[in-house]
Amino acid sequence: MPDVRITRRLHFSAAHRLARPEWDEEKNRHVFGDCANPNWHGHNYDLEVTVAGPVDAETGYVMDLKDLKELVNTRILDDLDHRNLNVDVPWLEGVIPSTENLVVCIWERLAPLIPPPARLEKLVLRETPRHWVEYSGE
Amino acid sequence: MPDVRITRRLHFSAAHRLARPEWDEEKNRHVFGDCANPNWHGHNYDLEVTVAGPVDAETGYVMDLKDLKELVNTRILDDLDHRNLNVDVPWLEGVIPSTENLVVCIWERLAPLIPPPARLEKLVLRETPRHWVEYSGE
Amino acid sequence: MPDVRITRRLHFSAAHRLARPEWDEEKNRHVFGDCANPNWHGHNYDLEVTVAGPVDAETGYVMDLKDLKELVNTRILDDLDHRNLNVDVPWLEGVIPSTENLVVCIWERLAPLIPPPARLEKLVLRETPRHWVEYSGE
Amino acid sequence: MPDVRITRRLHFSAAHRLARPEWDEEKNRHVFGDCANPNWHGHNYDLEVTVAGPVDAETGYVMDLKDLKELVNTRILDDLDHRNLNVDVPWLEGVIPSTENLVVCIWERLAPLIPPPARLEKLVLRETPRHWVEYSGE
Amino acid sequence: MPDVRITRRLHFSAAHRLARPEWDEEKNRHVFGDCANPNWHGHNYDLEVTVAGPVDAETGYVMDLKDLKELVNTRILDDLDHRNLNVDVPWLEGVIPSTENLVVCIWERLAPLIPPPARLEKLVLRETPRHWVEYSGE
Amino acid sequence: MPDVRITRRLHFSAAHRLARPEWDEEKNRHVFGDCANPNWHGHNYDLEVTVAGPVDAETGYVMDLKDLKELVNTRILDDLDHRNLNVDVPWLEGVIPSTENLVVCIWERLAPLIPPPARLEKLVLRETPRHWVEYSGE
Repeated sequence: MPDVRITRRLHFSAAHRLARPEWDEEKNRHVFGDCANPNWHGHNYDLEVTVAGPVDAETGYVMDLKDLKELVNTRILDDLDHRNLNVDVPWLEGVIPSTENLVVCIWERLAPLIPPPARLEKLVLRETPRHWVEYSGE
Repeated sequence: MPDVRITRRLHFSAAHRLARPEWDEEKNRHVFGDCANPNWHGHNYDLEVTVAGPVDAETGYVMDLKDLKELVNTRILDDLDHRNLNVDVPWLEGVIPSTENLVVCIWERLAPLIPPPARLEKLVLRETPRHWVEYSGE
Repeated sequence: MPDVRITRRLHFSAAHRLARPEWDEEKNRHVFGDCANPNWHGHNYDLEVTVAGPVDAETGYVMDLKDLKELVNTRILDDLDHRNLNVDVPWLEGVIPSTENLVVCIWERLAPLIPPPARLEKLVLRETPRHWVEYSGE
Repeated sequence: MPDVRITRRLHFSAAHRLARPEWDEEKNRHVFGDCANPNWHGHNYDLEVTVAGPVDAETGYVMDLKDLKELVNTRILDDLDHRNLNVDVPWLEGVIPSTENLVVCIWERLAPLIPPPARLEKLVLRETPRHWVEYSGE
Repeated sequence: MPDVRITRRLHFSAAHRLARPEWDEEKNRHVFGDCANPNWHGHNYDLEVTVAGPVDAETGYVMDLKDLKELVNTRILDDLDHRNLNVDVPWLEGVIPSTENLVVCIWERLAPLIPPPARLEKLVLRETPRHWVEYSGE
Repeated sequence: MPDVRITRRLHFSAAHRLARPEWDEEKNRHVFGDCANPNWHGHNYDLEVTVAGPVDAETGYVMDLKDLKELVNTRILDDLDHRNLNVDVPWLEGVIPSTENLVVCIWERLAPLIPPPARLEKLVLRETPRHWVEYSGE
């Protein structure tokens, strides 16, 4: 049974800033540069969700992409889109919303929801067209 | 003398929200939807600056692109990149930072700075890959 | 009052073939090449809808993009997406679904629906990333 | 000897539908949604062919890309481009042309043709810019 | 009869440098920066050829795109692709190969070849994804 | 501690040709085709640098992207951008500048410079949007 990876790309727009609350403005600016701007900045994020698994003999699907899109939208993107990642998202509380931390938090939330035998294989999170992160759960 | 249009694409990332201060939260949410989120959201903006004019016989240039890039960076993008468009930009004070209003404000600021015989011909401002505005000064 | 152009990009996937019913297979193949394949072929189309008009002083909008998206989806794309352009679309009956004919038919259907003072300004219809058409109603 | 992966991107346009002949229309529509439209729909597919192997000391090539392009065109794409994947392709007979099944069939056909020491390493097949599959032969 | 614009995107890769032979190295470096490197540099160029005209009632075409592609390839791109724009192209002799000069020279060569009633409407020449020029023959 | 991969995309433009000095023109043309043009040709290259490692608990970073960009620019791209890869680059001397050889040379130069615990994980070098290579140091 061939093991195929399928990917759905989705997107959201959000505000954030990078700063540690226990550091003063000067130190945050020194470490995080413009990303520490206290009045926030923001991005259009692209999220590429890759699910792997055997191809179902009846449908030819690893997983129905409409189900995957619905799952990511209702459990992840409805919380992130047009929101402030530092302030508005309960499951990011206390997390510095760097792209690295964000992709790990999305993984932990999404991986248990993929119906077996399919499995979450990889997440790619693009903060700009010139900068992205990947995570595979390890 | 042929009249050629040259374009340089640049980019910035910023936070904003759409809301009128004299309206209450409910009315802002009704008119502007998720864009009214009081904790802001943000975008990666692409700005395409088109300058038109005769081709210089010596250099083969309408305008030196390094000069154009420097001009847009120092007079426009340094004020917008990694900033909050509602709060941090003196020349946007009192303006609802819709893409339409933003492109007009950039035009008014940039057009007088292009050295003749070149002239600012068109601005394209992309808020997402699926939504953009154009303005030609009229 | 500045006149700004706003564009929303949408997409649909459809099957079609290029052939005149009164011509035989050989003539259709001669004129239209592989596009005449009697068992159809298909494309992912991108449609870029540009609306122009004055910027509303209260909202900063030329037109609410959510309204524009809803209009194009319900009146145009619901009829075209995952359909056969030669067979399934009443308002394309008798039309050879070349990209040129398709963009004109979409214009005629969409232009009267844009609420003044906004107006439909331009349509770009991309059949592949290497081939597209534009129409402005003239 | 370094082992490098080289990739060539190619494209084709085709019609298809997703449906099991032994199911009635209602069940096909329930399982496959709009993809079951009996009059077909279609896509612009992008195929990215990745070949891996040692770099030849004389040419600096893993494999001549012109040879790879010729091979994929004559053995794969000439059969798929401007065709109906359910009807026109002998080596897809009896296969539901989901993206998953299609990538596996292309792999089985293409892998034995890559001249050693190069080897087919990965195929990426994009059905839309928002949805793609990957297969590595396992 | 609607007047539609159709565009075909093509591409070529070439070497060039920007320098005036009557200027010394220092002056060329001062005016043209890194583009004056005496050992050349190069680009992947994208050329978008827009032809406008009435839609033929029989074919639904402004112009057969295969004919347009063939024309641009044989009369323009075969001379430019994998060539040195300063040295290898008879019809660029004595021209500083800035993007502006290049687009004008392509226009002058291509415009008379478009079969009426179609006409060459616009050329867009992209030197990088961040820099392009447009010319409409005036 | 999650192990995340971060990628920064950068770009440069360069001239090159593919040819072995000990072969005559005819043999070089036979093996390398148009790429052997003695007057050079050129490309816009995209370089995607992937660094992997644990996420720092204080900053949320695998590695500061500004540092990575600075490193790649000063140690790699300043030598390649607007240069001739066959002539101008000391660390490519004697190397046929195929994309495969180029990515390996960049790896060997860049890998020792990544500050632990981060490590260079993958390089993707795109010569055109239709052709790229990957290397992971093995």
